[in-house]
Amino acid sequence: MVRGEEPLLVQRPSSEHSSIAAEEEEALLTGERTTRNPKYGRAFWREVGLFAWATIATAGIIILAVVYQKQQQTARRHDDTPGPSGKRNLIFMVSDGMGPTSLSLTRSFRQHEHGLPWEDKLVLDGHLIGQSRTRSTSSLVTDSAAGATAFSCGMKSYNGAISVLPDHSPCGTVLEAAKKAGYMTGLVVTTRITDATPACFAAHVNRREEEDRIAEQMVGYHPLGRVVDLMLGAGRCHFLPNGTRGSCRADGKDVVTMAKENGFNYVDSRAGFDGLKLGSAVELPLLGLFADQDIPFEIDRRFEDETYPALDEMAKTATKALAEATRDSDKGFFLMIEGSRIDHAGHANDPAAQVHEVLAYDKAFSSVLEFLEKDSVPGVMVSTSDHETGGLSAAKQLHTTYPDYLWYPGALANASHSSEHLARQYFTHLRSLPQHGAHSPTSDDLRAYLTDLLATGLGVHDATSEEMQILLGHPEISFFTFADIISRRSQTGWSTHGHSAVDVNIYASDARAAKALAGNHENTEVGEFLARWLDVDVGAVTKELREKGVAFDTVGKGGEAESWMGRIAEEGERLDGWDHLDHAEGDFGKMMHRRCSVCGI
Amino acid sequence: MVRGEEPLLVQRPSSEHSSIAAEEEEALLTGERTTRNPKYGRAFWREVGLFAWATIATAGIIILAVVYQKQQQTARRHDDTPGPSGKRNLIFMVSDGMGPTSLSLTRSFRQHEHGLPWEDKLVLDGHLIGQSRTRSTSSLVTDSAAGATAFSCGMKSYNGAISVLPDHSPCGTVLEAAKKAGYMTGLVVTTRITDATPACFAAHVNRREEEDRIAEQMVGYHPLGRVVDLMLGAGRCHFLPNGTRGSCRADGKDVVTMAKENGFNYVDSRAGFDGLKLGSAVELPLLGLFADQDIPFEIDRRFEDETYPALDEMAKTATKALAEATRDSDKGFFLMIEGSRIDHAGHANDPAAQVHEVLAYDKAFSSVLEFLEKDSVPGVMVSTSDHETGGLSAAKQLHTTYPDYLWYPGALANASHSSEHLARQYFTHLRSLPQHGAHSPTSDDLRAYLTDLLATGLGVHDATSEEMQILLGHPEISFFTFADIISRRSQTGWSTHGHSAVDVNIYASDARAAKALAGNHENTEVGEFLARWLDVDVGAVTKELREKGVAFDTVGKGGEAESWMGRIAEEGERLDGWDHLDHAEGDFGKMMHRRCSVCGI
Repeated sequence: MVRGEEPLLVQRPSSEHSSIAAEEEEALLTGERTTRNPKYGRAFWREVGLFAWATIATAGIIILAVVYQKQQQTARRHDDTPGPSGKRNLIFMVSDGMGPTSLSLTRSFRQHEHGLPWEDKLVLDGHLIGQSRTRSTSSLVTDSAAGATAFSCGMKSYNGAISVLPDHSPCGTVLEAAKKAGYMTGLVVTTRITDATPACFAAHVNRREEEDRIAEQMVGYHPLGRVVDLMLGAGRCHFLPNGTRGSCRADGKDVVTMAKENGFNYVDSRAGFDGLKLGSAVELPLLGLFADQDIPFEIDRRFEDETYPALDEMAKTATKALAEATRDSDKGFFLMIEGSRIDHAGHANDPAAQVHEVLAYDKAFSSVLEFLEKDSVPGVMVSTSDHETGGLSAAKQLHTTYPDYLWYPGALANASHSSEHLARQYFTHLRSLPQHGAHSPTSDDLRAYLTDLLATGLGVHDATSEEMQILLGHPEISFFTFADIISRRSQTGWSTHGHSAVDVNIYASDARAAKALAGNHENTEVGEFLARWLDVDVGAVTKELREKGVAFDTVGKGGEAESWMGRIAEEGERLDGWDHLDHAEGDFGKMMHRRCSVCGI
Repeated sequence: MVRGEEPLLVQRPSSEHSSIAAEEEEALLTGERTTRNPKYGRAFWREVGLFAWATIATAGIIILAVVYQKQQQTARRHDDTPGPSGKRNLIFMVSDGMGPTSLSLTRSFRQHEHGLPWEDKLVLDGHLIGQSRTRSTSSLVTDSAAGATAFSCGMKSYNGAISVLPDHSPCGTVLEAAKKAGYMTGLVVTTRITDATPACFAAHVNRREEEDRIAEQMVGYHPLGRVVDLMLGAGRCHFLPNGTRGSCRADGKDVVTMAKENGFNYVDSRAGFDGLKLGSAVELPLLGLFADQDIPFEIDRRFEDETYPALDEMAKTATKALAEATRDSDKGFFLMIEGSRIDHAGHANDPAAQVHEVLAYDKAFSSVLEFLEKDSVPGVMVSTSDHETGGLSAAKQLHTTYPDYLWYPGALANASHSSEHLARQYFTHLRSLPQHGAHSPTSDDLRAYLTDLLATGLGVHDATSEEMQILLGHPEISFFTFADIISRRSQTGWSTHGHSAVDVNIYASDARAAKALAGNHENTEVGEFLARWLDVDVGAVTKELREKGVAFDTVGKGGEAESWMGRIAEEGERLDGWDHLDHAEGDFGKMMHRRCSVCGI
């Protein structure tokens, strides 16, 4: 027999179908060859067919089993979320001071302002996955420092702690661990870059007030060297030497120059920001500081586009710049973006300023979603708050009779400026007036000025005589009086100028990727998620910090009690007991002193 | 050839392996039979083997494909959640007036009281899946009537609407549709069974105040006849004829007798409740009313176990009774369980009463979970609130200096009674005193009495002279003064004695089954979920109600403006505008009038 005379697979004649079938049946049962085609008979082709069938079916089983197993693995991975294998990006957004009521308030304000139906939602609303419990080790009501330490280190600490533990030892942060693992890193804020939230990712001090020291650590005078590649925000005053214009440092160090010596490119103006071309013309490392203290509240900033960048613009710049910078790397980036001043609007009890801050955050959130959708590197964004601020409530009982079930977004829509802005205007006006002589202002003059200010700034035309009296007699608290006028008219309530203990919302770009944060969680679990998703080792960084920190000192030889992390936080310890009862009666003095450093008064 | 001489499958000799293999190879390629075993040769067995292999592999593919498809279907079903096929149970829990802060407050209170670590959670916390937006058609701040209509009908309506739409036409409820589909139905509450939340499931009136009419509808004087099989709660006064002890009806109807005529078994005492043996000795239909108005707040009730059942006991009784009653049915049950008085503690601004109400709800929630775990019928429980009450905040600024970041659960743990209970005690004491003559009380006597009441009832030993003066001079508002004393000492804040607009939490026994409610949703979507899960048609019920309602009248021939659903809700319409600004100054009169009907004052 000569092989190969016919191709292995031949077309059977399409006729004779039924007789062939009968023959095949016979042959199969008897094992006899059929009579036709003696060389490569039916039995042969039957065997070839059967073999092919069996092989294909087996391959099918293998493929299906692999697909099934893969899917199971994916499902499992989404449960404990170690992140994708290989290169990845992580964007962590913090809505400082945004509690559950901020969302409801802002959503209804937006619906009212744009005539939208009640089903209309914020972008955030479409991404809610859970809630975070926020207490610190020293109080049921956390501050932003303990809150951000929970995120950065994944551990609880005391109010005031900047990534240090209750024993005042430093804890490694997810940003530091990411940097060491080869990721690029960034921080974007609308307040001082040395404020508690951003500081907790790239600095370690015992008291959050040590912002001068924080500034130095953030530009690389840090036991691990430079750990941040990109910073955009404000708080320039802690980078400028004492005695120069716009400085708030206690010493003469020029931290901008120190940053440049460490390789940073520095921009400090809108022109400089525009030069970054929303991230396509950035050279890292980059330090961008666009105001001495805070970037103005969004409600005011929107009239000053040419002076200050918006949170959304900075978010776009940062994501683009970091994506470009890691294009050829096998590691991606870690970026923290904070809507810093939602908290400030809460401290001021200013609901009009708050809704615009939340909308600005929602817009930045939306831009990050868009970035992640378009970017080819696997990435996830998680967003949460450190705490609620103000004890905000969308209901305020104005009179002692049974309350109405109402609040009025229209009153917020009428306001074109924040109480902070109006207080600053009022003070500027007062300072401009002659205090003595024929031209000194009468009470009627001031009343007319205030009537106009209320109308143009808050859209309020019905100030009561009591409200006018407080504004005239106590300009030093006008910051709060303007906020109260808006709160009363919108019927929004506040219980404190500080923080509150309510659980805050958690959002994610991808509910499955962030499934470990679905439901109710400690804020430390958010921190644990960040490190796990990036697959970095914060424990190793803690160890290194403790070893290298011993010999590290940026502040020269201060008192013995001071380490490189500054003085010990007495406050944190004082707050440790729970059953203390404070009935002190006082005045606005202390509060005004703190807040009005912000007002520029 | 004779078939069947050898079995179809024979064992091949296990020797001669390699030579056989060579022969097989040859035979496969040539199609020739091998020389051995001429009848059922190697080629034959090869074909049989190949055929078996192919068949098994194909079967494997089919099995895997079916499993895979099934899993995909399950995943899809969890997305749009039509519920399981066949018999099923649905328990819907309502935490009336419980906002996000109530959870944080109660969790920390419990940790403090029992010395638990900060990671310790409520049972509820482990089941958080989303949040609900609560506005009504008439206000951004809903009441319980519009809130419950969103759940029962799946549609928005005005504040005060009991399952009627803004055009004052009735909408079919999930309970009515369930009853018509063959389910058993139940309602469990701790307030009046005629109050807005339970009423919305089994009655239709234009104004929630029409509780007399609601009582009649709920016992079956309803266009659809009797729709509820089990009711446990309070509000007996609307069932008793005017003029009899404990009645609050405007007319002389004896609704208990009317209920009995419709087949209801009636219990109205702890002894009667105990006779139900937690559900194992219940005959349906059952009406159980255990107080004239409300069952006392849990903080007070725990000392009166022998008078009033707890929410948890009623929940256990209802689930057991309904499960038993549907044991042989191909339909399960729909049960609504309300923690009614979380809302009342919010109206009173009493944080000590509130934490005990939330704990009682958490316990009932836990019992329902246990029922569902043990029961063989597929079931799901969804839990949410209609709205927040009080503008509660776990932070209160007591003085005008910058606030502390603190609140004190210890002050709540010190309180053994509610402000409602203490106000009632104070009033009873005042009424017992001679008003004139030698034995009339001095201010010192009353001061001593109040000092003792504050110590024993609230654990407060440091009442300020101002607080004492208000208690002495204004006993009519002592209900609020006691609550304020506890709120100040715990540093819990309130912004209103009414409701607020914050989104409320959604919980579920099974996050996958209730996946349609994960994230942020309108309250109407909760209602839509209930009907979809039970696979019942509320639209058909709406149609039937409109047809049958035309000829239906339980209240005799009243004014022309009244239908069977009572008077038109003017209030709902009055509230329709948004830009109204209420600056009215008043006193506690109206509020006290409403609340003190509850205090029994």
